[in-house]
Amino acid sequence: MSQWYSESFNDRLRVSLSMSDKRVDIQSPFQRIEVFDSPYWGRVLVHDGLFMTSERDEFFYHEMLVHPAMASAPSIDKVLVIGGGDGGTVREILRYPQVKEVTMVEIDAKVVEVCREHLPTIGTAWDDPRLKLRFEDGIRFVQEQPEHAFDVIVLDGSDPVGPAEGLFNQSFYEHCQRALRPGGIFVLQSESPLILEQVFYGIQHTLKQVFNQVHPYFGIVPIYGCGLWTWTWAANEGNPREAKPERQDQVAKALRYYNAEIHQAAFAIPSFVQHALNQL
Amino acid sequence: MSQWYSESFNDRLRVSLSMSDKRVDIQSPFQRIEVFDSPYWGRVLVHDGLFMTSERDEFFYHEMLVHPAMASAPSIDKVLVIGGGDGGTVREILRYPQVKEVTMVEIDAKVVEVCREHLPTIGTAWDDPRLKLRFEDGIRFVQEQPEHAFDVIVLDGSDPVGPAEGLFNQSFYEHCQRALRPGGIFVLQSESPLILEQVFYGIQHTLKQVFNQVHPYFGIVPIYGCGLWTWTWAANEGNPREAKPERQDQVAKALRYYNAEIHQAAFAIPSFVQHALNQL
Repeated sequence: MSQWYSESFNDRLRVSLSMSDKRVDIQSPFQRIEVFDSPYWGRVLVHDGLFMTSERDEFFYHEMLVHPAMASAPSIDKVLVIGGGDGGTVREILRYPQVKEVTMVEIDAKVVEVCREHLPTIGTAWDDPRLKLRFEDGIRFVQEQPEHAFDVIVLDGSDPVGPAEGLFNQSFYEHCQRALRPGGIFVLQSESPLILEQVFYGIQHTLKQVFNQVHPYFGIVPIYGCGLWTWTWAANEGNPREAKPERQDQVAKALRYYNAEIHQAAFAIPSFVQHALNQL
Repeated sequence: MSQWYSESFNDRLRVSLSMSDKRVDIQSPFQRIEVFDSPYWGRVLVHDGLFMTSERDEFFYHEMLVHPAMASAPSIDKVLVIGGGDGGTVREILRYPQVKEVTMVEIDAKVVEVCREHLPTIGTAWDDPRLKLRFEDGIRFVQEQPEHAFDVIVLDGSDPVGPAEGLFNQSFYEHCQRALRPGGIFVLQSESPLILEQVFYGIQHTLKQVFNQVHPYFGIVPIYGCGLWTWTWAANEGNPREAKPERQDQVAKALRYYNAEIHQAAFAIPSFVQHALNQL
C-alpha cells in the first residue's frame, strides 16, 4: 500500500493523494518544491505543501484557464503568461497556429527546471520557437510593458501567499489592463468559492474596480479541495459568451475537458455565489 | 484541534472531514449508520464508511437530483422517491405547490429515524400531508405498481454496494419505465466519472437499453471525492433542456445552487466523458 500526501484546508477538509515515491524535495529562493509519484495521479507537483497539478488531472485546470479567453478574444497574436511554471498553460495557448508569440514570465526558474525534468508530459511545448521564456518578477515585467502590448494576459498564479501575493492586488490588475490591446482579455485562476471564499470574492471585487466586464466561470479541478474551481474573464468590453466557433474547432480534437458547450456552461453561476456577488 | 473522518477511494484519493464529536454509530439491519459533528460541515451522515451528506453541502446534491426533472416533466402531480432517507429529496420536491402526492420508499427505517433526530435541518418536510412514507424494499414496490402511476421517479440511492445494489440493474429500470406516465421522467444519482467511472458508464449503458432519452448531467458535491458528480435524466421522449421557466421561478428564491442557467449548463458534457460515452 502506498502512503498518502495530504493537504488540509483550515478545519474543513483534508485531501490526500496516494504517493508511492518522492522524486523531488527542494527549497528554491521562493518556495519549497516537491514532486512525487502517485499510482493514480502520475507525477504530482506541490509548492509549499499545496497541490499544484498532477499528470492525470492537469488538463482540467489548464484547458479551463486558457481556452475561454482564447476562444473569445478579438485577436490572439501576442499572449502573456504570468507564472505557469509547469508549462501546461503555454502548451494550451500554442495549440493555436495564429498565435505569433507567447511571453511567459515565471519568477522561479527552479520550478521550470524541475517540471522540465520530472513532469515532461505537461510541458510539451518548451521548444516551440514562438515561446519567449523569462525568469523574473511578473509584476515588474507588466509595469514595464508599453500600452497595448498583448491580446491576452493569462495569470497562472498559485494561492495569494508566498511569491504570488502581489498578483492579487489592484495595482497589478491596472498594469495588466494598460498592457492589453483594445478588446484584450485578462484571465486568471480565481480560487474556490467553497474553500477560499474570501479570496474568490476579494478577487471579484478588486477586478471590478479595474475592468468593466468581470465574469467568473466554473469548472472542476479534481485534486483541489471540493473539486469546484473558478477562473475569471475580465476585459473593458466584450462578452465572454461570444466564443468563436472556428477557434474552438481548431483545438477541439486535442482537448479533454473544454468544448463549445462547456464554454457556455462554465459561465453559469450557482445561486449561492450569485447572491454573494450581488453583495459586493 | 478536531479529528478527521476519512473516506478513501481505492488508491486514488482520500477525503477527510473535520470531526468534533460522534453522535451516532449504530448497525441497522441494512448498514452501519454514523452521524458526527463537524466544525465546518455541521452534522455529517455516513453509511458503511461512505459520506452520504452534510448539513452544509447537502443542497448541492438534493437540488441537482430533483429540480432538473421537476422543471422539465410534463406534469408533476405524483412523484415517487426510492431511498432518500435523510429527507432532503422530498423537501425539494414538496416545494412545488402543484405536487399532489410524494411516495417515498426507504428500505431502512433506522436511517429516517436517525436523520429526523440528528439532521433536522435537512428533512424539513416530514410532516407535509402530501408525503406518504413507506419502509420497504423499493425494488419490490416498483414491481407492484400499476402502469403509468407516476409523473416523476427519483432514485436517491447510495453506491451500488450493500442495500442499494439492486437499484442499478436493467430489470429495476424497466419497472420504473413501466410505472411512469407517458412523458414521465426517471432521474437518479449516477456517481462520478472520475472516482467510480465504471459505475457511471455502466449506468449509462444500462439505462440506454431501457429508455430512448438518457442524459447525464453534471454538478458539484463538495464532500464526494473530486467534487464532480453526476445525475442522469432518462425518459422515453422529451428533452431535458426544455425546462419550464414558470416552474423554475416557483422555487428560485428558496434554492442555493440550482437556477435556470445552471439547468442548461449541467447538461454540457466534458469532452473526456463524451468520448467514453461514444464508445458504449
